[in-house]
Amino acid sequence: MDKRSRSERVVTMTKILCSNPYRLFSLGYFMEMFGTAKSTVSEDLAVVRTAMEDSDTGQVVTVAGAAGGVRYIPRLGKAAMAANLERLAQQLAVPERVIPGGYLYMADLICDPAVAAWIGEAFATVFANRVPDYVVTIETKGIPLALMTARALGVPMVVIRDEGKVTEGSAVSINYTSGSTRRIRTMALARRALPLGARVLLIDDFMKAGGTARGMQDLMAEFHAAVLGIGVLVSTTEPVRKMVEDYVSLLELAELDEQDRRVHLRPGRLVPAFARD
Amino acid sequence: MDKRSRSERVVTMTKILCSNPYRLFSLGYFMEMFGTAKSTVSEDLAVVRTAMEDSDTGQVVTVAGAAGGVRYIPRLGKAAMAANLERLAQQLAVPERVIPGGYLYMADLICDPAVAAWIGEAFATVFANRVPDYVVTIETKGIPLALMTARALGVPMVVIRDEGKVTEGSAVSINYTSGSTRRIRTMALARRALPLGARVLLIDDFMKAGGTARGMQDLMAEFHAAVLGIGVLVSTTEPVRKMVEDYVSLLELAELDEQDRRVHLRPGRLVPAFARD
Repeated sequence: MDKRSRSERVVTMTKILCSNPYRLFSLGYFMEMFGTAKSTVSEDLAVVRTAMEDSDTGQVVTVAGAAGGVRYIPRLGKAAMAANLERLAQQLAVPERVIPGGYLYMADLICDPAVAAWIGEAFATVFANRVPDYVVTIETKGIPLALMTARALGVPMVVIRDEGKVTEGSAVSINYTSGSTRRIRTMALARRALPLGARVLLIDDFMKAGGTARGMQDLMAEFHAAVLGIGVLVSTTEPVRKMVEDYVSLLELAELDEQDRRVHLRPGRLVPAFARD
Repeated sequence: MDKRSRSERVVTMTKILCSNPYRLFSLGYFMEMFGTAKSTVSEDLAVVRTAMEDSDTGQVVTVAGAAGGVRYIPRLGKAAMAANLERLAQQLAVPERVIPGGYLYMADLICDPAVAAWIGEAFATVFANRVPDYVVTIETKGIPLALMTARALGVPMVVIRDEGKVTEGSAVSINYTSGSTRRIRTMALARRALPLGARVLLIDDFMKAGGTARGMQDLMAEFHAAVLGIGVLVSTTEPVRKMVEDYVSLLELAELDEQDRRVHLRPGRLVPAFARD
């Protein structure tokens, strides 16, 4: 393989690094792959790093030392974050999305892999310094967003179910109150799905009163997990007081008028890169 | 930006192409991005294409003509497919995964973004020539695999629910028989989730008798959809006769002995790149 040009080598390096966010690759890995000297690999990686600096979507970071190497970290810049959120807000704020009962139809966007991917990168950007072991969500609509967040953070996803499943073995289940409907509901997580004492990030699509997020927190306590953060795609302005204290929302649903089919979204809460107006 | 070197330009091109499988980028897109001439972009793309040829995970393909351009197509080579499937089979065939009742615990692997990503690329490879408009799955465990398949094919995912949801508006629901338990169950899909007459690929994690897949086929008929293929991660050897005729499974569960906790998996059905022994 040593006949490859630098340009060809950096293409392969970029593909490998970007396909495996946060995974550390030693210089030896690339030396072996290309049959090149360490100095050549270092120069190649310098090119990759420089080219990525302009990209506004991620960085290639070098870790020094014997156990060191290089990794790709997805990180949306302010401009990319703002542009993506504004586009999403526009896509959501259309009369056709108002569902009888006063709901906002979002499933098509959540299930679009390209949209889910950048939302995952947005959460990975916001929570980058929390260093979770797992991204935890609850079925069903949180899954695409949580999976892409987990991908961008280089960690596994864990899915809380509505009830214990026979296919997953013994489970811990709790009851919780859906904050908006006041109904008692159940959520369950298989014992084998999450080791005790893990560091977790909670991701979901929507938060109204925060009852589900609160339930997830309580369930995580059963696993002695440390909840490092809660992220939702959309939170509602009302009720102002949620059942969880600390959460991040990318967008805030300020108004949804079922009668007039009027929807108004604005920038979310606690997103440093996309400050409130 | 015209001060960039070729090596830096191809890094950015690779990142953009690989992040957007199947999406067609015109040469003009890159000419504008880098402020370079068409001939330069063509030469850059030739480098990217050449470097990718060795990768065994995907190709960069040029589409000629006025509406042409270049796109990245994930495509696992025989070696990559075989190696990935063998590793997954080994990870699954361990006694600890046998769940009382005779089930195989797979949720952790399905929820690992890196595993889900290559499974998605495997399905995209197998079904590449079917050209679906949508990848359709049913909640819950099919979702990570379907999302990554949809990502690798550059199309949206659609999730069939266990019942109609108030947050998704009017739905079409059908009853179906779970082939293995013979229980009558319901599945539902919001009308707005899928336009009539779409070309769809069905993806799920597991198939025993095929009742769920059959139900999905029936529900798709209600939407006048053309089912181009059915793909499951694991199918069971027994029953030999499934309720659907034509499906692809990546792995086949030949034995699961609950008493002795013995699991045996072998290569699946109809995967050209990983032929049956």
